[in-house]
Formats: sequence, C-alpha cells, structure tokens
Amino acid sequence: MRTSIATVSLSGSLTEKLTAAARAGFDGVEIFENDLLASPLTPEEIRARCADLGLTVDLYQPMRDIEAVPDDVFARNLRRARHKFELMGRLGADTVLVCSSVSPQAVDDDALAARQLAELAELAQDFGIRVAYEALAWGRHVSTYDHAWHIVEQAGHPALGTCLDSFHILSRSSDPKGIEDIPGEKIFFLQLADAPLLGMDVLQWSRHHRCFPGQGGFDVTGLVRHVLRTGYDGPLSLEVFNDVFRQSEAGPTAVDAQRSLLVLKESVGLAEPPAPVVPTGVAFAELLTPDAEPVAAVLSALGFARTARHRGKPVDLWQQGQARVLVNTGGAARREGVQLAAIGLESPDPAAAARRAEALLAPVLPRRRAPEDAPLDAVAAPDGTELFFCGAPSNWRGDFEDVPHTPAATSVTGVDHLALTQPWHHFDEATLFHRSVLGLDPQPSVDVADPYGLLRSRAVTNADGSVRIALTVGAAPGDDTVHDRHIALATDDVVTAARRFREAGGRLLPVPANYYDDLAARFDLTDGELETYRELGILYDRDAGGAFRHCYTRTVGRVFFELVQRDDGYRGYGAPNAPVRLAAQHAVRAVTGG
Amino acid sequence: MRTSIATVSLSGSLTEKLTAAARAGFDGVEIFENDLLASPLTPEEIRARCADLGLTVDLYQPMRDIEAVPDDVFARNLRRARHKFELMGRLGADTVLVCSSVSPQAVDDDALAARQLAELAELAQDFGIRVAYEALAWGRHVSTYDHAWHIVEQAGHPALGTCLDSFHILSRSSDPKGIEDIPGEKIFFLQLADAPLLGMDVLQWSRHHRCFPGQGGFDVTGLVRHVLRTGYDGPLSLEVFNDVFRQSEAGPTAVDAQRSLLVLKESVGLAEPPAPVVPTGVAFAELLTPDAEPVAAVLSALGFARTARHRGKPVDLWQQGQARVLVNTGGAARREGVQLAAIGLESPDPAAAARRAEALLAPVLPRRRAPEDAPLDAVAAPDGTELFFCGAPSNWRGDFEDVPHTPAATSVTGVDHLALTQPWHHFDEATLFHRSVLGLDPQPSVDVADPYGLLRSRAVTNADGSVRIALTVGAAPGDDTVHDRHIALATDDVVTAARRFREAGGRLLPVPANYYDDLAARFDLTDGELETYRELGILYDRDAGGAFRHCYTRTVGRVFFELVQRDDGYRGYGAPNAPVRLAAQHAVRAVTGG
Repeated sequence: MRTSIATVSLSGSLTEKLTAAARAGFDGVEIFENDLLASPLTPEEIRARCADLGLTVDLYQPMRDIEAVPDDVFARNLRRARHKFELMGRLGADTVLVCSSVSPQAVDDDALAARQLAELAELAQDFGIRVAYEALAWGRHVSTYDHAWHIVEQAGHPALGTCLDSFHILSRSSDPKGIEDIPGEKIFFLQLADAPLLGMDVLQWSRHHRCFPGQGGFDVTGLVRHVLRTGYDGPLSLEVFNDVFRQSEAGPTAVDAQRSLLVLKESVGLAEPPAPVVPTGVAFAELLTPDAEPVAAVLSALGFARTARHRGKPVDLWQQGQARVLVNTGGAARREGVQLAAIGLESPDPAAAARRAEALLAPVLPRRRAPEDAPLDAVAAPDGTELFFCGAPSNWRGDFEDVPHTPAATSVTGVDHLALTQPWHHFDEATLFHRSVLGLDPQPSVDVADPYGLLRSRAVTNADGSVRIALTVGAAPGDDTVHDRHIALATDDVVTAARRFREAGGRLLPVPANYYDDLAARFDLTDGELETYRELGILYDRDAGGAFRHCYTRTVGRVFFELVQRDDGYRGYGAPNAPVRLAAQHAVRAVTGG
Repeated sequence: MRTSIATVSLSGSLTEKLTAAARAGFDGVEIFENDLLASPLTPEEIRARCADLGLTVDLYQPMRDIEAVPDDVFARNLRRARHKFELMGRLGADTVLVCSSVSPQAVDDDALAARQLAELAELAQDFGIRVAYEALAWGRHVSTYDHAWHIVEQAGHPALGTCLDSFHILSRSSDPKGIEDIPGEKIFFLQLADAPLLGMDVLQWSRHHRCFPGQGGFDVTGLVRHVLRTGYDGPLSLEVFNDVFRQSEAGPTAVDAQRSLLVLKESVGLAEPPAPVVPTGVAFAELLTPDAEPVAAVLSALGFARTARHRGKPVDLWQQGQARVLVNTGGAARREGVQLAAIGLESPDPAAAARRAEALLAPVLPRRRAPEDAPLDAVAAPDGTELFFCGAPSNWRGDFEDVPHTPAATSVTGVDHLALTQPWHHFDEATLFHRSVLGLDPQPSVDVADPYGLLRSRAVTNADGSVRIALTVGAAPGDDTVHDRHIALATDDVVTAARRFREAGGRLLPVPANYYDDLAARFDLTDGELETYRELGILYDRDAGGAFRHCYTRTVGRVFFELVQRDDGYRGYGAPNAPVRLAAQHAVRAVTGG
C-alpha cells in the first residue's frame, strides 16, 4: 500500500519538505496550499521536482467553505475552485480535499450541500479531478464522517467521494465501525494522525497536538482495519499539525513518520518486517570520555573493578555483579567530559534484532569497529545513542583481555535502569522507536518539576523488568543541556552500598534535611531507619507493590550513578523524589560551577 | 492591602524565589511544600531569610487528601498533619492550605468531612495555626467554593475557614457572587490566578497554563470585588502554575506578577497609581547600528531625507511626512547590525505617563542622556526597548540641528505600526505592560505559521489607531533570534511608493508568483491591478472594513521596513499574508546567508 505525507507535517521550505519525504521513502505527498503559495517554484517546477524525487502528488489541500451556501456565494466559490483546478492541472494533482464548511454563511441543508458538491464535482471532472469531501470535527453543520458520507451518497456524482481523517473521527469519539458501510471506491483518500488524549478544545487540539500513529492515544490501527475492509486502495497518508514538528528538522521527522506507518502497516497485516526481538538484559553501558580518571574513581568507589581491556582500543571494562560499564577514551574528546553514548542489550537473536531495527529505518552501524573485533549488530537510536545487540557474552567479551584485579565488592548486582535524556524534539519519536524497534513497553508519562522547568519522563521496559530505560525530556529546547544521563545500579542493600561508596572516597548527592522531616510525616519508618537515610542521602518511595530506596553520586561530566534497592513489586522510578534530586543537583552545580 | 506570592509561581531555588519576591515588593509569600523540601535551608533559616527580606510567611501549602476518609486513614492523616504543624511553627507560618480530597478513599459525606476538618482545626489550634480549606476544581466530592464553605460552616470551628482561589472558581464557571454570602473573617486566604480561556481538561489547564491576573481571560477583578465586599482583609496572593514562568528568570517574573496585582488593585479601587496617559502618536523609532550606511541607503530609497543631526551625539534624524527614524551610531556596536532599540511616543503629558510607568514598576531611564539634552521622560519595556514619552516636538527636536537636505519624496505619510519581536518568555508580560502602563488596547491574538515554527502575534493600539504596536513571539526559545523587528510606514499609494523605492535602488522582498494566482482566485481584482502587485511584490488582504496593501524591504541587520496602504476601515495587519512573507524572508536569508 502506498504511503504519503502532507507537506504541512514537515518543517522548512517546500523543497526541503519534498526532499525529506522522498528520502524517508514516501511514495507521494499531499501539497498543503500555503506551502505552495510560499514557494518560489512554479506548479510545473514543483511537479517536476516531485517526479525527480519519485513522489506523486496525491492530494491538493484544502479547499474550504464551499458548500451549503446561497447561490451567489456558491457562484463565487465555483469561480475560486476553477482557479484551483487549473492550478492542480499544472501541478499534476488529481484529487482535491474539500473540508466541511465552517462559514457562518453555510446553512444546515444536506440537500443543498449535496447539490452544490455535485456541481463542484461536475466542474472538477472537466479537469480530470476528483473531489474528496471530509467532515472537520468542528465543521459548522457537518462534523462526523457518516454525515459527510451521507451527503456524498446523496450527491451521487462519480467525481465526488469522501476523505476520512482519523483525527477528525477519533477526536469526536465517533465509532469507526460505520466506515465499513462506505464502498471502498467512494473513499477517495485516507488521512492518518494520532494525538495524545488531552480533553481540550478540538480545534486547538488538532492544530497543535497531532502526532504520528502510535505516538498518541488513538486506536488508529483499529480505524485502518475498518477502512481496509471496504476495499480502499488509496494511500495511507499522514497529516499532522504539531508545534514541535514545525520546529524540528524535516529529515528526521520524515523518517519518524515513515517508521510510524511501517509499524501501522505491520499491525494491520500490510507489512511483515522481521518480528521484534525483545532484549533480555543490559549487557553494558558505554561511557565516552577524554579522560578515564574521574569516572574510574567513581566506579572504583562504587565497588567496580577494572576486569578487562579491549585488545585493540582504549576501552576498559569495569564490572560488578552483572553490571558492566565500558569506559572508552578513544572517541573524539568531548568538551563536556563523560557521556553515556552507547548501550549493549542482551538479545536472544542479535542479528534478527538488527534486521528489525534496519527494517524500521534505524541507521545500521558498521558491524565491526576494527578488523579483529567480533562482529556486533548495532544501530543508532533517534538521539544518536548507539545500541549494540549482544548475544552470548562471547559475542563481545572475547575482544577484551582480562587484566589482574581485586574482585569487586559486589554491593551492586546489576543495572536497574538507564536514564537517557532526549533532545527536546525527539520525545515522542524516542518512545515510538523503543516500542516498535526494540519491542519495549512504554509506561505512563509523568511530569517532573525541575527548579528551572518541567520535565516529562517515560520509561520503556521489557516484561520482567530486566531492561528498563527511562526517557526524559525538558519542557523546552533550553533544557537540552541541563539534564544529564545516568546509570541506575541495582543493589540488595542500598545502605551498605552507599556506606561503602562513601568510605571509599565517593561523594553522594546531599539531600536536604527537610526532605526527611517530610518522610517522617508520610511514612511509618523507624527513627533508626530514617536517621540512616538522612545520614547517607537515601531517598524513599513506596507504592502498593513495595518500597524503593535510592541515592545518587555526584555528577561526572554529563553522567551520574544511582544506587537502587527495589522491592520486587515496586513499579516506578522514585518520580516523587525527582524534584528534590534535581534541586540538589542544581545546588551542587551552583556551588561547583560544574 | 498586603500582597503575597506562592513560591511555586517563580523559578529557581527557594532562596532565589524569596529574593525575587522581596525585590519586586511583595509583603509575603506562600511556601509551597516541595520548595521547602528541596531547600538546603532549615525551616528556621527560611524564617530568618524571609524576615531579613521583609517577607511574612502567609501560608504553608498544600496539605492534601485529609478529610472524609475512614477513621483509621484519618488517624494517619492527623499524624501527618501534626508533623506539618510542628514544621510550620519552626517556619513561622500560621495558616495552612488544605485542598479538598482527590483520594479514592474519600467518601461523599459532608458531615464526615466537617467533623474531621473540625478535628484537624482543633489540633491546628493547639499550634496556633489556622486551617484554610479550599475546593479544588477537580476535587473528588468537593469541587466548588460554596460546597467547601458549606462544610466549613457545618464544622463550626474557629480555627477553620475557607481559602478561595480564583482559578478553581472561574475555571468551573461558578458564579462568584455567592462569595458575598461568606463572612469575611471566615475567608482565611485568597489565591489569585488568571488563565487563557482554553476549554481543556481543568487539571492540565491549572497545572500548565495559569497566568497572572490581567494576562488571561478570567474576570479576576470582578471576583476580587465580591471578596472585598465580605470584609476580607488577608493578602491578595498569587498562585500561578505556568510552564513558561517555570523556565524564565524569577526576578522579571516577580516584577510582572507585582505589576499585575497593582493593576488589579487599581481596578478594584485599592490603589490609585497615576492615571494612564494614552499616547497619541509615534514621535520616532530609533535604530542602533554600528554603521549608518546600509540603513541610510534603505531610508533614502524609501524617500526619507536626513533632515537633522543631534547636537551632541552621532544620531541622525531621517524624516518623511510624519515618519521619523533616528539612526544612532553611538551605541555599543552590535554584532548583528541594525536594531530597533527605542521608540518615541507622543504623549499629552509625558511626565504623567512616566509617573504611571514608574508606579507600575517600569524601570525609569535617566531623563537626560547628556547635560545639554532636553530632559525626556523614558522607561524600559520588559524586553528592554526604550520608550520615550514626547510632548511637543520641541521636547526633543531642539536637541537636533537642521542639516541641508533635498525635501523628501513624501510617498510615506507616517508610521502605520511598529512590530516588536519579543523574547520567548515575555509575551504575556509584554501585553500586560503595554495595556496597563501605556493604556493601549490588546487586539485578539493570532497564530502565524513560519516555515520553522509557529508564531503568536498580538497588536496593542490606541483608540484612533495612531499608535499600533504588534507584539510577536516564536513558539519556543529557539525562535528568539530568527525574527526581526520592523517599521511599517503608512502611504496613500503603496504602488507609487514601492516603485519609487525600487527606482531609487531599493530592493523589495520577492513574493512568489503562486501567491498571486491565489489572490486571483480569492478576490475580484482587475488583471492590471494583479499584475502591478505581482510585479512589485505587493501583498493584499481585505476584511469587512476595507483593503490592506503592503510590501516589504529586504532586511538590514535585524530590521526591515514595510510599506502599508490601509483603507480606513481595515482593522488588521495582513496576518493571512504573514506565512508567505516569512517564507520569503527565510528564502532570501538562505541565499544571502544573512
């Protein structure tokens, strides 16, 4: 099935939009009128540009406020339409979108609407053009898809059909089952958009908060199934108005859009990319740093031992329990010091995991970094983080040569979760990527108050919690550089782990005394327990499933570590404590200037 | 009447918040619990800090999910409350906010709620504390102010009163008249917030989109009038949750907050700042530039003549009709070239205008720039733009010495409007400033699509349109530097003005041919008229009152000029054409790299 995207969904000039759409593999585009008006290219040049790029012009849109008006107004509307039909001829577009009227001049008269739409279609037919009539969710008299279809049916003109738009249908909670009552050949076009369930004015919702299928809360898949049952064989086309996408680069947005359609196609049986291979554990986290010393000091204090060194590159393996951290001093030196740049995920079938990632448009990284390395399947996440799919440890561990070391202290048993700050424009994209490419389940999104802005955070996990990744983004671009990434280490005894860390010279993040007064008010903790937490800076949370005790190291470069003691049943990540942690980190930064 | 502000309304650490509130002249603060928890200061230190700053601690907030619960749960809640009352003693706070419960454990039983609140108040009284019970708009069983008051009345405890919050009341469209039925001494606290009328889920609306009184769409003034009639004599306190304010600097936000209260006090008769003196015209616009040549070339081509030079400084006066542009090469050289940095407004009483501005917290600029200059009343707008209040031309024109010149071409008759791009954080602030300080009327806000993001634009004008200022802001901080300011020049004949400009070597912004094809479809313009517009790059708009014809010069530094022919009845600024103009500017920039 062909894929298409409306130019309004992407940022930039029309040329930039077309290029991005073609590079992301779309077959066609909807040309949004304002994009054409603002373009210095003539319609003929746009047509040629599309042809050069392998894009068809699937739709010209929108025509507004056409139908159900007094005759003199309609005569003017027809005149306007004739101009647009001439333009569409030059552009090579054979379908036009007509939105249900929002004009105060429109009357509530289906027969009149049908008669005038038939007349419009008659004119269109002379130009070889088809008219696709769509109900806007906020149309003045026509606001539901079945109403629009009823008018199209009444008009009975071969050049008149309907356009279905998942946003307009699902935002009104219309039952999409009725779509199956429409003959497929009368569905001239299908526009797809998802949206978060915001419960706000539908016009504002539509204009600012649409997103790509799978990024929001609508059952777009279910709707598409109904449409396919009608025999519809036009394109699946994305039309998304989104304040963030308007500002982000067209290229990555188009790739993300195409990925969302691939996933949608898979879910309705139109495509069969390689099945997801859900990771079963975290093999390693890799830190890039120009200078290993500061991070080595923290790892040592945490009880890690430097157990091995890469045979060909300046990469050290630090290990404790099942937690492994690679410290790579070979990358280009980064001004800001230590960065969490790559993750190794244990996979039952690394090659298949990589094939799925590639099929879903993740850039594949070279399989070998050096000729002598074991081949490792790896892709880049949308934020640039490198994801390595690791099978048996021999897969990658063989590239490392053991070095003599004192066995680790084993306070830490493994990795509890990885917290990956995302660039501002990539939050929805990151969630969709981790869900669709890696097969992880997104958890509910939470807002977290930082002293200098609100953050959004959302975890993606596998079923048994052995892989947990917390994706976090600031409320605005300004926050991009403020928030660091971290590695949360699992321990069975956070008090001992914290104490050992401190005794080994490690510095824990100080937590204000007021926090502990509040803990005392909220929870029945013994005085001794509370005093211990207060002394070490351990934070505490509890849900129906159990308790969560955690503390943080000071930040090194752009990375810090968390020690986590999690009761089996506890589901979260200590979000209620995040504002206190963030404030403490700002306070340290203010003092150290770091 | 005392003013207060909740610490959650400001960004930063608690110390930063308190300092900002004190500097902006607040008498007290509400301490938001999370701000205290995240602070390294002890309650005693916070108390001392407030005292040093001259701030009282008017409220500790919030306590949640206290009432209408089973006895064992209530016992735990009382235990929690006791901890908080002890804390409040250390903090020096004598009133606590209790929000109506949202807990699933709460039952719909007013008598139980009243009994438990009375018990809470009894405990509070032992600590010398008063309990202010407030209905959250999304409270589980209690969501309206009259319901909350009914429960307080039923409880009948002297240490229990109600807290009114304008957001919770007005967001539910409750009639605030009933407030007058509450005895003033039982209103323990009054929290004020405004909000844009968004028609969205009330919890999200409250948490992200509150703003200061006068910045939104609620009748906060009317509500306060009702409260005052009860005899309430507590503070007017601001409690605003706003995603933007969370990110902006606390200092300016606090000043803006205080200004909003001053305006509110004025409107309810609690304060009498000097009355507004509405400006009657634009005396001049002042450009700062390190090099006069590029802007002089554009002004010359537009038909301006350099008519005078400042006696003591490198400032030239360029004039044509009633349009005057000062070109100042004396300021610190700016990397980005020409900037629109100051505006002269004609005022019937400049000194009074400046007194009002000062009373409403606008920074007053030195009256004389040099000893020999005429004294000029001037203040800084929130964005740093200097506003000069000018009386008779002799006020300032005397500082300039005529220079020989050829009389201007007089295509231009005056200034139609000034377009001032605002820093991202200052849009609501700018509107409130121009309305309250200058007495200008805000027009409806419009969204404008730029190729790389959405802009918001809002004009403020005087009654006869002789002063029109368009305030524009990007959708996110990233847009700050993208959009330049401009001076729109009025002409009776934009075609002649544009032609003369071009013939004099001026370069107009090119407008795509597609735009004119669309004009032909939308309007009945003669072929000749359309051809002329197309040739010159003149844009066209029409509303019920008449037509608007306009074109743009290329940008010089960070400034460009618009030529405007406005029919008397036309109310707008050509907003439908703005996307085309913005795209054309981006296209020029992409070619010239400028």
